Amino acid sequence: MSRLTLDHASTIVDAALKIARELKLGPMTVAVLDAGGHLVAFKREDKSSLLRYEIATGKAYGALGMGISSRTLEQRGIERPHFINALMAASNGRVVPVAGGVLIKDSAGDTIGAVGISGDTSDNDEACCFAGVEAAGLKSA
Amino acid sequence: MSRLTLDHASTIVDAALKIARELKLGPMTVAVLDAGGHLVAFKREDKSSLLRYEIATGKAYGALGMGISSRTLEQRGIERPHFINALMAASNGRVVPVAGGVLIKDSAGDTIGAVGISGDTSDNDEACCFAGVEAAGLKSA
Amino acid sequence: MSRLTLDHASTIVDAALKIARELKLGPMTVAVLDAGGHLVAFKREDKSSLLRYEIATGKAYGALGMGISSRTLEQRGIERPHFINALMAASNGRVVPVAGGVLIKDSAGDTIGAVGISGDTSDNDEACCFAGVEAAGLKSA
Amino acid sequence: MSRLTLDHASTIVDAALKIARELKLGPMTVAVLDAGGHLVAFKREDKSSLLRYEIATGKAYGALGMGISSRTLEQRGIERPHFINALMAASNGRVVPVAGGVLIKDSAGDTIGAVGISGDTSDNDEACCFAGVEAAGLKSA
Repeated sequence: MSRLTLDHASTIVDAALKIARELKLGPMTVAVLDAGGHLVAFKREDKSSLLRYEIATGKAYGALGMGISSRTLEQRGIERPHFINALMAASNGRVVPVAGGVLIKDSAGDTIGAVGISGDTSDNDEACCFAGVEAAGLKSA
Repeated sequence: MSRLTLDHASTIVDAALKIARELKLGPMTVAVLDAGGHLVAFKREDKSSLLRYEIATGKAYGALGMGISSRTLEQRGIERPHFINALMAASNGRVVPVAGGVLIKDSAGDTIGAVGISGDTSDNDEACCFAGVEAAGLKSA
Repeated sequence: MSRLTLDHASTIVDAALKIARELKLGPMTVAVLDAGGHLVAFKREDKSSLLRYEIATGKAYGALGMGISSRTLEQRGIERPHFINALMAASNGRVVPVAGGVLIKDSAGDTIGAVGISGDTSDNDEACCFAGVEAAGLKSA
Repeated sequence: MSRLTLDHASTIVDAALKIARELKLGPMTVAVLDAGGHLVAFKREDKSSLLRYEIATGKAYGALGMGISSRTLEQRGIERPHFINALMAASNGRVVPVAGGVLIKDSAGDTIGAVGISGDTSDNDEACCFAGVEAAGLKSA
């Protein structure tokens, strides 16, 4: 099983911000966590609002927490709100069940980390996640 | 009143994982708590996602917290969400009101602990709880 | 880089408890964490006191937190108490700077987890850590 | 008063890591906070231990918290430990009073952020802070 390196994480952050600028999205925050949920690389663009760190890391942590994208987690939260409420409480608020957090997988399909992005619509945030992971030569899910 | 021993708890964990492997369920996490809510034995299978400890222990703690299975707790939460929200807050997020946590009882019907499992559907998680407790020669509820 | 498996962790726990029984040590608690600091396997012997979970996991988490054994961390804490106090606060009390927590390394020398033990003297706790890791065919540090 | 930009922060992080590699220091973690104490840019090198995020941000946050470098904060903590203990508690553990956190100032002498570094000796961590801030054309204190 491989490990997410700082090189991977830096590439993901910079590629995600590059596509965000090309698409003229709002000021973006990008967080990349390793498989253990620990921050590896992070950038917050100028004029970002204050809770972007918590949202971006929370999307990524939620994905790692349940082994699914934060978009799928969001859908489950709509279906079973008591379960998502419990996850948020059990994780001391580290789970943000909103699209824009995706798992990072190696070529064997093993999860090696997650990226979370916040700053524009959830759909646009997620699109930047995919672009970032692809730029690093890794798979997203 | 009897007490849950480490022998009991280890048997419950290993029997639950054995049935999970036979049924080819997802990677499972099993937590056994004593009557005081303290962890006695725990195993997390390879490739489990990050919040499985919190979920498995939270199901068991919720069962002990109200003296009912976490399945019944889930039903109550759907009927009275404000009550479950209060329990989650009051316990600092230690209650996860989702099926898959059952009380462990001795032959006199006294609660001596609880087991919580997370990794597959809630129904399958709960079935593994029952199998584990039965293997230890104890009663579940 | 390899990963700590549940098989490794279970072997460490059981081997540590076996040597503790042979040496007639006090009731022991053994916790094995993966490289991300997440619990993989855990056992607490009968008649253990209430905080053994926190102490055993805290020794292991402290070792992972600084990349040194909790014995070395203890020595640093004696030399620079303000630094250890800060680590305890910064980790929300997850660091216990006392001997009895050792890093688990693979054959390449990379850290893949940590084991923490509490129940007897710190020296005896640590000796059981070494015995457990050796039984799993891994290196300790 | 000027503001710390992401460009500044990225330059500080990359310049600090560049000098750390030239000096063959241990695996480094670099955190840059803005004047409000919020993370702007962050990198954690491969093989870093788990609490480096907390330590690096805690050094920077402590500097911002009292308006002095974390080296000066450390000295004050040795002289008046009760005061530093109170700061750590009051900030929920966000203050790490150890050298390696410096204020970032603009040309008018106003504080616009702080950088915190952890991974080698406190003296080396601090030297990398100074090198990073200088590379961004800003002042440190």
